Amino acid sequence: MHPKLIPPETKGHVSVARLARFWYVACQSGELGSKPLARSVVGVPLVLFRGPGGAASALLDRCPHRNVPLSLGSVVGQGTLECAYHGWQFRGDGRCTRIPGLLETETRERRVPSAAVQERDGLVWVYPELDTMPESSPFELPPAGTNYARVVREVQADGSLHATIENALDVPHTAFLHRGLFRGGKQSEILATVRRSADRVEVQYDGEPRPSGIAGRVLSPGGGIVEHWDRFMLPSIAQVEYRLGKDVHFRVTSFCTPESDFRTRMYAVAEFHTRFPGRMVSRILEPFALRIFGQDADILRAQADNIRRFGGEQYASTELDFLGPHIWRLLKQAEAGELGGEPVVERTVRFLA
Amino acid sequence: MHPKLIPPETKGHVSVARLARFWYVACQSGELGSKPLARSVVGVPLVLFRGPGGAASALLDRCPHRNVPLSLGSVVGQGTLECAYHGWQFRGDGRCTRIPGLLETETRERRVPSAAVQERDGLVWVYPELDTMPESSPFELPPAGTNYARVVREVQADGSLHATIENALDVPHTAFLHRGLFRGGKQSEILATVRRSADRVEVQYDGEPRPSGIAGRVLSPGGGIVEHWDRFMLPSIAQVEYRLGKDVHFRVTSFCTPESDFRTRMYAVAEFHTRFPGRMVSRILEPFALRIFGQDADILRAQADNIRRFGGEQYASTELDFLGPHIWRLLKQAEAGELGGEPVVERTVRFLA
Amino acid sequence: MHPKLIPPETKGHVSVARLARFWYVACQSGELGSKPLARSVVGVPLVLFRGPGGAASALLDRCPHRNVPLSLGSVVGQGTLECAYHGWQFRGDGRCTRIPGLLETETRERRVPSAAVQERDGLVWVYPELDTMPESSPFELPPAGTNYARVVREVQADGSLHATIENALDVPHTAFLHRGLFRGGKQSEILATVRRSADRVEVQYDGEPRPSGIAGRVLSPGGGIVEHWDRFMLPSIAQVEYRLGKDVHFRVTSFCTPESDFRTRMYAVAEFHTRFPGRMVSRILEPFALRIFGQDADILRAQADNIRRFGGEQYASTELDFLGPHIWRLLKQAEAGELGGEPVVERTVRFLA
Repeated sequence: MHPKLIPPETKGHVSVARLARFWYVACQSGELGSKPLARSVVGVPLVLFRGPGGAASALLDRCPHRNVPLSLGSVVGQGTLECAYHGWQFRGDGRCTRIPGLLETETRERRVPSAAVQERDGLVWVYPELDTMPESSPFELPPAGTNYARVVREVQADGSLHATIENALDVPHTAFLHRGLFRGGKQSEILATVRRSADRVEVQYDGEPRPSGIAGRVLSPGGGIVEHWDRFMLPSIAQVEYRLGKDVHFRVTSFCTPESDFRTRMYAVAEFHTRFPGRMVSRILEPFALRIFGQDADILRAQADNIRRFGGEQYASTELDFLGPHIWRLLKQAEAGELGGEPVVERTVRFLA
Repeated sequence: MHPKLIPPETKGHVSVARLARFWYVACQSGELGSKPLARSVVGVPLVLFRGPGGAASALLDRCPHRNVPLSLGSVVGQGTLECAYHGWQFRGDGRCTRIPGLLETETRERRVPSAAVQERDGLVWVYPELDTMPESSPFELPPAGTNYARVVREVQADGSLHATIENALDVPHTAFLHRGLFRGGKQSEILATVRRSADRVEVQYDGEPRPSGIAGRVLSPGGGIVEHWDRFMLPSIAQVEYRLGKDVHFRVTSFCTPESDFRTRMYAVAEFHTRFPGRMVSRILEPFALRIFGQDADILRAQADNIRRFGGEQYASTELDFLGPHIWRLLKQAEAGELGGEPVVERTVRFLA
Repeated sequence: MHPKLIPPETKGHVSVARLARFWYVACQSGELGSKPLARSVVGVPLVLFRGPGGAASALLDRCPHRNVPLSLGSVVGQGTLECAYHGWQFRGDGRCTRIPGLLETETRERRVPSAAVQERDGLVWVYPELDTMPESSPFELPPAGTNYARVVREVQADGSLHATIENALDVPHTAFLHRGLFRGGKQSEILATVRRSADRVEVQYDGEPRPSGIAGRVLSPGGGIVEHWDRFMLPSIAQVEYRLGKDVHFRVTSFCTPESDFRTRMYAVAEFHTRFPGRMVSRILEPFALRIFGQDADILRAQADNIRRFGGEQYASTELDFLGPHIWRLLKQAEAGELGGEPVVERTVRFLA
């Protein structure tokens, strides 16, 4: 057959990294009840379930017998996962403990590869490199402070991990893609200071006016000085932090999980403290945040579709792309196992927003 | 482009065999009326139609002129297939007999490749190796006996021929996938005797209790000794035979047709003799059989999807997989044209069911 | 994984040519208003928009910054295309004129590849070889005559450019695919004279009776002598011309645009002169023409699907395929840049229609 038509100007490169030796959030604790749950993490199909005492486990989502997904099965007895097809049973560590019908115990051990799991603060973390004892621990979110409200929300985007995180931490697009919802008033000159170290990159903004949109007016009716940081931490954490005056503090930490090359799940943990009750603030801001995310999801899908249509990316960055190129550099270093060799980088850029 | 994420533990093997030099059921006689019928057999797109006197024919489903499917055409005159596009006409042997508009007869013979066809007992068989005179005949079902009811039903599964036949002949899954519908009562120790010869493999069960589900109670209210055989016959016949006491005899012969690698059509011929009228038994059992088949179809699709997702199979068999590995061995031997060289194999296994 | 089942008798050839160094109609003038419009031409994704003074422009449909389709953006100011994501702005020649937020003008020029555009007679033509000054001009339709009605219609077919044009210019299929709508009455012997020159091929029919279907009766109630030509002109123009007696003249020129290998868009310009008011004739003929085209679109889709299913074409032509093989020869010559070296070919064929 004739090859497909390929449009010109294609480089073939795509910003997709695959970091299996890291922890990712697979689900929220409340999602994992008495039924097994299917989740793909870095392309590895996993089945999660609760074993004895409710401890969360994760196995490769394939019965070794006839390869049907174990996530179609059920949890029986004291927390054993039973395959829906022939009833083979597996413990949380992957060991097969029962093959119905067999009279004699098999000497050869049968098992399913398993992933390390840790449950903490309402999130279930997995380590998708199978049958491995991780040397690291899941990311621990330092306390935001006392009297903080905390809201967790999950969203999904049809974009690569890199594109999704770059979008989540990008300031310049907000005045266009989210016109009217977010920024977009009179522009000021802002100083952005970018710092990249071994496993993270952060940008700090100085001189930013109070956001002029609805959110800004709700949060800080009196205006005031804004402090704002956007941070990426390996392998997949995006954090946005705002302080408006002495009363208002917002920190949204998004734990991103690449399900596959072009599908990213995000668990956003919003912690905040304002002059108003947390529940009220949350009710006001949530619809607004969901509209913003809907616009981001649409553009990420269009971007991914176009990259596939062109057979690759061809990005042109300016100094306003504060974090994207650094995030890509960190992801590639992590994929190659070459983290930490570089000195801290710090750079300052003036721009309008 | 980046290659797709591939999960670990994949072998790349898939149990797909392609046996073109065998007979397969393409349709039931009643399905083939005055219109052409499209059917794929072992991946070969065929058009079936009735020629002079109603004789069934099968041609490659592609007009040699501009390659549109001949199955979009119509049967004209005394049984000639006319292409829908330019009206070229073809006989059952594939010869082109008319090209509308041409004044002079073409000297070069134009034809469509044809497949051998035999119609017997309400089934239309084809031999998908085109333009070949088969040396064998379609499978002939020996008479079940006098006073037998006969019901033919067609179902389709999104599974490979091997997976679909293994499922149809597998006992251990019935207590799990069909829990409540089929087996599932008190377990007994059963003796399974497996016999493989040149073109078939059979398992005979001794000591099996009367099936405890609805079906068993309907068929043999008084209980009694059960005789049960499951058989595979090359290339694609699955047969299940039950005798319950002296009054009840059931034989379901499923003629399986691989449409493509992961799509299998089955023509199940059920012949049975019980103490009750055949039509009554059929009415009671059919919904029950369709529910069972629905569950099988669901698990076969999940299995095939998972095999594709993992890029191949990685099966682990036990001695309870009485037939599957033997069926695969026979299919591979047949594909390689190496049938019949091995001695008869017989093995006995005790198990619980 | 096992390769897919491949049916026999496949050649692997597909009649797809890719001629980028030619002009194609991208849209009608009226379709291009104040919003950008996405169009693929020979597989090249383009965004069309109107710049200063309403001049039509065409750019590659990808923002150089983060690769989202520019067609999701909007036209701002005096005709600048603004990307929806970060608000980068582009002129009709592809030059980036604004990157919001940047304080200093970038010295490095940023641009999007652009396609030459010409607007004429209500059609917007593009030249999909990007960043190229075409040496040729779009096809100019000579005036049909005075007092002619003109109707432009757009249709789309899931067929290759070659298959779609061959269909549009093919006479023999009309008696079968369009049975009852078009030809199909008593057959006459017709003389077809085929002439191929450097960039076109034409067939002229002598002895054709007035079309016996509805159309013929409406147009020329009194019958009369028919003159009829079918023409192909490189790269993608199909023209059908009829004269019935001295009063009736019809010329339908279809400008075909290959969107991709198996998707063709056609802009049909019908010009005609009859004894009746143009608007009345148009109202009567349009539903009839759309039914004919619907049948053509169905068969073209079935043909393309079958060619893909078989992994390629295997056409058999007769002398009744007056134009198809010549069109393919011209397309291949044009693709190879070897036009014009052959002498004029003329051939006469008698046939029945």
